[in-house]
Amino acid sequence: MTATITAPSRQANFTGLKCKECGAEYEAQAIHVCEYCFGPLEVKYDLSQLAKTITRQTIEAGPNSIWRYRSFLPVETNTPIDVGTGMTPLLKANRLARQLGLKHLYIKNDAVNMPTLSFKDRVVSVALTRAQELGFTTVSCASTGNLANSTAAIAARAGLDCCVFIPSDLEAGKVLGTLIYGPTVMAVNGNYDQVNRLCSEVANTHGWGFVNINLRPYYSEGSKTLGYEVIEQLGWELPDHIVAPLASGSLFTKIYKGFREFIEVGLVADKAVRCSGAQALGCSPIASAFSEGRDFINPVKPSTIAKSIAIGNPADGVYALDIARKTNGNIESVNDDEIVAGIKLLAETEGIFTETAGGTTIAVLKKLVEAGKIDPEEKTVVYITGNGLKTQEAVQGYIGEPLTIEPKLDAFERALERSRTLERLEWQPVLV
Amino acid sequence: MTATITAPSRQANFTGLKCKECGAEYEAQAIHVCEYCFGPLEVKYDLSQLAKTITRQTIEAGPNSIWRYRSFLPVETNTPIDVGTGMTPLLKANRLARQLGLKHLYIKNDAVNMPTLSFKDRVVSVALTRAQELGFTTVSCASTGNLANSTAAIAARAGLDCCVFIPSDLEAGKVLGTLIYGPTVMAVNGNYDQVNRLCSEVANTHGWGFVNINLRPYYSEGSKTLGYEVIEQLGWELPDHIVAPLASGSLFTKIYKGFREFIEVGLVADKAVRCSGAQALGCSPIASAFSEGRDFINPVKPSTIAKSIAIGNPADGVYALDIARKTNGNIESVNDDEIVAGIKLLAETEGIFTETAGGTTIAVLKKLVEAGKIDPEEKTVVYITGNGLKTQEAVQGYIGEPLTIEPKLDAFERALERSRTLERLEWQPVLV
Ligand SMILES: [Zn+2]
Ligand SMILES: [Zn+2]
Repeated sequence: MTATITAPSRQANFTGLKCKECGAEYEAQAIHVCEYCFGPLEVKYDLSQLAKTITRQTIEAGPNSIWRYRSFLPVETNTPIDVGTGMTPLLKANRLARQLGLKHLYIKNDAVNMPTLSFKDRVVSVALTRAQELGFTTVSCASTGNLANSTAAIAARAGLDCCVFIPSDLEAGKVLGTLIYGPTVMAVNGNYDQVNRLCSEVANTHGWGFVNINLRPYYSEGSKTLGYEVIEQLGWELPDHIVAPLASGSLFTKIYKGFREFIEVGLVADKAVRCSGAQALGCSPIASAFSEGRDFINPVKPSTIAKSIAIGNPADGVYALDIARKTNGNIESVNDDEIVAGIKLLAETEGIFTETAGGTTIAVLKKLVEAGKIDPEEKTVVYITGNGLKTQEAVQGYIGEPLTIEPKLDAFERALERSRTLERLEWQPVLV
Repeated sequence: MTATITAPSRQANFTGLKCKECGAEYEAQAIHVCEYCFGPLEVKYDLSQLAKTITRQTIEAGPNSIWRYRSFLPVETNTPIDVGTGMTPLLKANRLARQLGLKHLYIKNDAVNMPTLSFKDRVVSVALTRAQELGFTTVSCASTGNLANSTAAIAARAGLDCCVFIPSDLEAGKVLGTLIYGPTVMAVNGNYDQVNRLCSEVANTHGWGFVNINLRPYYSEGSKTLGYEVIEQLGWELPDHIVAPLASGSLFTKIYKGFREFIEVGLVADKAVRCSGAQALGCSPIASAFSEGRDFINPVKPSTIAKSIAIGNPADGVYALDIARKTNGNIESVNDDEIVAGIKLLAETEGIFTETAGGTTIAVLKKLVEAGKIDPEEKTVVYITGNGLKTQEAVQGYIGEPLTIEPKLDAFERALERSRTLERLEWQPVLV
């Protein structure tokens, strides 16, 4: 298995890779680090050319998935791997808004993304499509769980061999939700940053396509669709403020990039969007840098229930910092209790069951509103990136128990009375 | 809390309720059983009127959810509860088709339905919209799990009080995936049929809106959208053959009804569609009646891992039987081992992780193909109705374990070598 390198064809709007730091340019191969300065590589597009042809109508006439934005994604094929990924609901969240004191709150709900219920299906759909174009037959990843689910599932669908790497202490649902697709699963005794380092070594020796290592420039572009979709779903308008979780920082920077690209090609009127980020206190290197006014990240050793965003040495942390600062946003962190309360608050007000990362984002939203850092009048979009069924351990013990009864009417009546008494005694407004 | 009864307004295309057995007509109230013959009531529409105005274009211009078919659903409001339910992917399943020896196989994937990952979100969206129209402020259901998830979630979103009833032996994910939304949960020491009987008593005494009891005529109409969507997603064409799971039989009969309605109003050309049903051997009263040539159902006591379809006394069993027979379909059952193998087969070939009901349907599909009861040339659609993350217990122990390693390259290399040896020793084609 070797990576056949092909130059982008005429069909593609991307022209190669470019170093984010020194600007050195590269062909669109399976590389991710600049040879000169070790900076990260990013995909380059000919947006001025694209601006001449792209319209809202051509996008709206496309498939009901991320591939309606194919012109902005780094693939050459007209038949990408499309399993319905993307175009998840943007829900007006009136009950949650009322609870928090906001007026125009929206939830972008990737907890129901297809096929594996997290935003990772976006980046993996792009990465594996590109992997096939580059000739890879085995794909891989370093993952905190969701990425492993997605890579294994989409690889199965595409008929690619798959080997994924996860920390050995992951939630049961994320491990099982990977194994089911039949990949090789390596559970590494270490945290995500150690898993990631090991994978960099393997990428150099095995010629595999690691979606978030040697394919990272292509992979990460998939997150731009979370920016595009919000614009389209708001009726071709930018929000005033967004709140998104920060793990490596890549998602955050790519949502912002998505906004800027649609402005640049004239699909949406320019407007300042405040970009705020959410971290778990037990792994908050970007939030710490933000609050301390640093422009560099001090790596930390993660300790939080929000395992899917527990990256102690975030690759795109400095870029996320920069965006939060220049857009007049904030980066805030919350503790594990607040994360659980955030999960419950979203479920009880909007009927959305999110995982710990989503709980983090909701709890940070609340904290920012309370601190006066989000104006009630702002049109605010919160990104929910994963599903609560995968992190059941996190809420077990905090959601009560069913009332067990015999199948008799009088048993039911007694239980109902008991539950109403309990409610009167214990009832407290959620999260207040 | 009382049920205010309103007559349908001019906006609605439904004109009331009608007994499926004796034809007696009723106003569109919260009733489900005929006063004269105890037959089930069904919603009546003025389809000849609708045929004059409805077009493919008006449907395509509608929302990207079941509500694009609002004209065919029993609600009056123009602002139904819409959380993006429906319009799930219809995937061409080439890898699974090859494995089975079929040529034109499609998966209708409600394992990623919104918001709670099963087809129940369709029926609950309709039922709770109608419940609000009828003035209910507390909603309820008798559930094998998925329905409880959906009722609790959508009630939370709509701000309705909610009390759900489940058998006490349900899968952990289904219990937790209900509790999270904050309803009252009654876990009944008994099987679904006992839960259902208890709920019928409660419905008579508490004035609650039970989605699948007193609101059942409205509720069950939601499943028609699984017929409509397949027609639209096939490019306004009917399939040749469908395979769907049978629990109460309602889903099956309503998919068929959806097909017939679109033919009747002229949205699609008439064609015979063979309708085949799937049951778990441990609860197969409809399959037994089918194979024994009976036109009545002998209730059974369920014993199967496929708990979500374990209904021993299926309310719509005889109607399902009738449809399978008159469309030249089949009803088949499979044992628990075949169900697990079906779950794995779908995951490994198409990257879709379904629950036990879906495993049942895939295993029955395989059995029907092998028995020559599905022609390889037939355009076949298989309905996957729920998500595997909710029934993790069913596959635990059948999907292998991760290879645990230290974060070192040589540890990885040894583990990889070991896994390849194991694969060579143990490898067997899936399900063969
Ligand atoms: Zn450089
Ligand atoms: Zn009757």
